[in-house]
Amino acid sequence: MIQISGSDLKNLDKRYRTTLINSLSGIRQVALVGTMDRNRQSNLSIINSVTHLGAEPSLFGYISRPHTVERHTLENILETNYYTFNFVTQNFIKNAHQSSARYPKNKSEFKECGFQEEIFENQFVFVKEASVKMGMKFLEKITIKQNKTDLVVGEIQNVFIEPSRLEKDGFVNLDNTLMNSGLDTYYVPEKIAKLSYAKPNSEPQFLIY
Amino acid sequence: MIQISGSDLKNLDKRYRTTLINSLSGIRQVALVGTMDRNRQSNLSIINSVTHLGAEPSLFGYISRPHTVERHTLENILETNYYTFNFVTQNFIKNAHQSSARYPKNKSEFKECGFQEEIFENQFVFVKEASVKMGMKFLEKITIKQNKTDLVVGEIQNVFIEPSRLEKDGFVNLDNTLMNSGLDTYYVPEKIAKLSYAKPNSEPQFLIY
Repeated sequence: MIQISGSDLKNLDKRYRTTLINSLSGIRQVALVGTMDRNRQSNLSIINSVTHLGAEPSLFGYISRPHTVERHTLENILETNYYTFNFVTQNFIKNAHQSSARYPKNKSEFKECGFQEEIFENQFVFVKEASVKMGMKFLEKITIKQNKTDLVVGEIQNVFIEPSRLEKDGFVNLDNTLMNSGLDTYYVPEKIAKLSYAKPNSEPQFLIY
Repeated sequence: MIQISGSDLKNLDKRYRTTLINSLSGIRQVALVGTMDRNRQSNLSIINSVTHLGAEPSLFGYISRPHTVERHTLENILETNYYTFNFVTQNFIKNAHQSSARYPKNKSEFKECGFQEEIFENQFVFVKEASVKMGMKFLEKITIKQNKTDLVVGEIQNVFIEPSRLEKDGFVNLDNTLMNSGLDTYYVPEKIAKLSYAKPNSEPQFLIY
């Protein structure tokens, strides 16, 4: 194994370290975050930090870093309280990645990246092309004191799912949707198995393989 | 699209809703969390909530939910301040899933699930079979007030990577490592592309396809 110590980490070239640490956090679902400001100017940003915080109430968090391209997103959320998470298939890889470019505030990434806006109940702006969409209501912003990064906590208000993706038990099949690692490397998931509930002293069984 | 409203969500059967909300948070890297208590009793738990919080210092968070199987893990972290994240390949799918079973505190999931302990510097317990391993130092536990879930923040102390997985630019290739969605469905990543840095008014280029 290659070993990288804490002091090695501190001495690495900045770009190398950023790439290393980003990719060490693993491969994760890509979400496009849709927002509007109070003048209904829309914004779209790409993240991979959506995290399940609880099912009752249905809370998801995501990480907003200081001085990143997501600043417009966080400003809009704090202004209007509403935002959306949108999962797209690999067909939209270039469009999704393009939303990481630093557009000025008066340009909408929806138009610039080739996505259509879908306004719902006058306050949610979804990506029309997305396969799975969630409307979120902002609850809390928690600042991590070590580096001023924010955990943005919200509650799911509504969900839209392509019918073929919703299974009988409530499981949402995300086959063919975009995931990424680091800042530029994209993946799709390949399903390998569904396993039985794990109990001590019995081996888990493959339910699908 | 199938629409599920906020009131629909509240009225869903509990098990259906748990499956739905868990899978809606997306597919994510599986990490095995290794800890020891002050008497050096080891513990291993499975999570998929490792989240990048920053590269300088190198901070990762993960979510510890109240009253879950991860309780021993959090207790050990608060007792000793150290823990490890371990990524394994799909060869270890059954072993990894088995670590979600509720073993009593005096049983080590390392032994029960067929993993070997690898002690480093007398304070980190790694999974010997893992392809990528990180030693973490506990910094802060932030409780999300809506549901008493904890965000556990730590700093990377050391990293071990299989040589073939570390690329020239610092990118860690996680091909063939386990990811999951919800509580029981496992995936491996299929790489589709690396894209050039996105800039306004120019289309991103495929660097690898």
